[in-house]
Amino acid sequence: MPDDLHPDLEPAMEDPSAAEPEQPARGRFSRRRVLGVTGAGVAGAAVGLASGIGVAGASTVPAPAPAGPPVYPFYGNHQAGITTPAQDRLHFAAFDVTTSSRTELVSLLQDWTEAAARMTQGQGAGEYGPTSGPYDAPPDDTGEAIGLPASGLTITFGFGPSLFRESGRDRFGLAARQPAALRRLPLFPGDNLDEGRSDGDLCVQACADDPQVAVHAIRNLSRIAFGRAALRWSQLGFGRTSSTSTSQVTARNLFGFKDGTMNLKAEDPAGVDAHVWVPGGADPKAAWLAGGSYLVTRRINMTIEIWDRQPLSEQERVIGRTKAEGAPLSGGGEFTQPDFAMLGRGEKPVVATDAHVRLAHPDTNGGVQLLRRGYNFVDGSTSLGRLDAGLFFMAYVTDPRTHYIPLQNKLSSQDGLSEYLQHTGSALFAVPAGAKPGEHVGQALFA
Amino acid sequence: MPDDLHPDLEPAMEDPSAAEPEQPARGRFSRRRVLGVTGAGVAGAAVGLASGIGVAGASTVPAPAPAGPPVYPFYGNHQAGITTPAQDRLHFAAFDVTTSSRTELVSLLQDWTEAAARMTQGQGAGEYGPTSGPYDAPPDDTGEAIGLPASGLTITFGFGPSLFRESGRDRFGLAARQPAALRRLPLFPGDNLDEGRSDGDLCVQACADDPQVAVHAIRNLSRIAFGRAALRWSQLGFGRTSSTSTSQVTARNLFGFKDGTMNLKAEDPAGVDAHVWVPGGADPKAAWLAGGSYLVTRRINMTIEIWDRQPLSEQERVIGRTKAEGAPLSGGGEFTQPDFAMLGRGEKPVVATDAHVRLAHPDTNGGVQLLRRGYNFVDGSTSLGRLDAGLFFMAYVTDPRTHYIPLQNKLSSQDGLSEYLQHTGSALFAVPAGAKPGEHVGQALFA
Repeated sequence: MPDDLHPDLEPAMEDPSAAEPEQPARGRFSRRRVLGVTGAGVAGAAVGLASGIGVAGASTVPAPAPAGPPVYPFYGNHQAGITTPAQDRLHFAAFDVTTSSRTELVSLLQDWTEAAARMTQGQGAGEYGPTSGPYDAPPDDTGEAIGLPASGLTITFGFGPSLFRESGRDRFGLAARQPAALRRLPLFPGDNLDEGRSDGDLCVQACADDPQVAVHAIRNLSRIAFGRAALRWSQLGFGRTSSTSTSQVTARNLFGFKDGTMNLKAEDPAGVDAHVWVPGGADPKAAWLAGGSYLVTRRINMTIEIWDRQPLSEQERVIGRTKAEGAPLSGGGEFTQPDFAMLGRGEKPVVATDAHVRLAHPDTNGGVQLLRRGYNFVDGSTSLGRLDAGLFFMAYVTDPRTHYIPLQNKLSSQDGLSEYLQHTGSALFAVPAGAKPGEHVGQALFA
Repeated sequence: MPDDLHPDLEPAMEDPSAAEPEQPARGRFSRRRVLGVTGAGVAGAAVGLASGIGVAGASTVPAPAPAGPPVYPFYGNHQAGITTPAQDRLHFAAFDVTTSSRTELVSLLQDWTEAAARMTQGQGAGEYGPTSGPYDAPPDDTGEAIGLPASGLTITFGFGPSLFRESGRDRFGLAARQPAALRRLPLFPGDNLDEGRSDGDLCVQACADDPQVAVHAIRNLSRIAFGRAALRWSQLGFGRTSSTSTSQVTARNLFGFKDGTMNLKAEDPAGVDAHVWVPGGADPKAAWLAGGSYLVTRRINMTIEIWDRQPLSEQERVIGRTKAEGAPLSGGGEFTQPDFAMLGRGEKPVVATDAHVRLAHPDTNGGVQLLRRGYNFVDGSTSLGRLDAGLFFMAYVTDPRTHYIPLQNKLSSQDGLSEYLQHTGSALFAVPAGAKPGEHVGQALFA
């Protein structure tokens, strides 16, 4: 790094408030040594990465580094964080663009792309890192991730409908390229949405195996956005509830049940192609989105205090699966297909007609599958003394008009589980394909 | 377990809504098999525990099990979760007692003690666990921790001043035993407290290396409290900011600086005895608290957006340490004692007079030390589009009148760091000594 970036190392200091000791040898030695330590720390954090910022090939499942915590390539055909094996922690943020300048919007996406490419490789958000930049300037990284590995961090960007058109206004000259599928989600029966937890012009999904790493990513991207975009809402999550790879065991949601048994898996490329990626050519307005996806987010509060007072029999009836193993009530193991036709006592269906597993199953939804990537959340407690807790539902789909809206309309009106749920946040984003080195995320939209 | 607890295994079912299939062989087999699987799961979760619920000896640092994730004994001379090496995740909850019956309060403490003893060993909250109890009763465990190990879970209980006396009223016949030191914390300069995040009759600190395990513990204790105590507030935390053992590296807070370098460590038993545990005999009203401690909690919001715009020089001046290594600005390494007398440019102190390290140091506070156990938090974002983030400060001390109140009075009026902080929650609890098997936590208070 060039020496002129370190005015603090010069004998004549500009800013007496820096209070550098007079003893120059000691003071300089200390600072130089600190810089050395930092350099080593950054290099150490990127351990396991063979060749700097990698480029993903056509493989749907980026392979983690062979040893140590995983480091996923940022650049590739698709954005990372979709079919990547779901990490354990989430920090999701939606932003409102505050500039009216298309140029500034593009420069924000460029800056975000560069910062994300660095952070996902275990490096600082900026060129110099948290402690090696000019001493009398704000650091270009906030520092709380110093010494932490990349921890499998992926950063995934998306564009909300309001970026294209807001109250009929074409804000950035993008209206002609708004995909027909990218509209504000409708209000579903029973929705009790908080505007402050819904929608947004831009979204950033940061997933990692260490929450401090995910928080660090969103915090720095928010800092970088200053003057161009402002945080609209953000959501932390833990305990991924949806496996996205056959290498992962099925995790449990806060109802205590396994969640995501039937989820699309990265190891099923035909299924992922059919249900996740946006194809080229179908909608000319969405040509820029080919190879991308749509992301539905729903903040679903669970009334867990009421759920916890239900008998095990009722809980299993509502879900349609056993709690212990997650097997369909019609028999078998977790991955046995439910037998919806099986009749039990009194000629009633063994899997109830309003059981969640029946209503959400691809067989009762025209074969529709979702790539779910949800996380449990607990946001403290409500003024009524209940845990503000539930599932932050995220699903990547090829088209929300076929792959989410009909399903959710059915679930919210018929699913027995709805009695224990309240949807408090809702958003839809178009998630562009991956960037190549030198490009910014979503560049095709602005081309 | 007795067979009569499983009515669902009987041919004649009471509740047709359970929708058990008619095919008795298949249906029964399935359920029995599920029970078998569950039993194995529970046993597996307790792996690493040699002899069921252990009893801690006089050792200050409970030794984790030799292999696998740590399992800490629940019973012992002191409660676990104080000098235990700080786990990575926190769920802290304050409760208001809703019953006016002393008997019910004691029964709550008994139930909590038994549940905590089980959960800390990786078992379910109740006798039967999440899926092995009566089929037509609510499970005595909520299930989201099935298959997860104990993950170093500790559960630590405390009593707030309002449990002893509220508006002058002796609620449970405990007023004569209210320690002189157990009073609501005073309002400090600059405090901007939210009542909904302050105080409480009872507190429960759940720390674990897996957030789902910590959340599971608080959720089940809250469920068990139903009708006797209600959640008042709760706080999740991640990224422990205070090492409590020399075996741990110093972690970073959301200012990006190492936090807790000078913290009391479990490996300093004389320091812990002098500054953490309440001695017997000093205050006759506090005799029941001998071997316990006082817990101060402060929810400290950081204005990180403003902090992030400060030059590195200003950040280091305010803290009095380097950001990279955490060394005092007077030189040396992280663990070098700061030289507060050292003068630099213009005969100004190298460590500024309002630097945090100077004002908080034991040498400038009559030798007072705290056992800090704080966690970083991010609770989404505020309506102003800023991260609702900071430090959930927790400190265990022998007496808040000598060990916290004077220090905080000084910091909140003189510390340069205060400019970037806002205290939004505050509470003080008396944390009794550990329970022995057969006792409940805090039994001496009710004797």
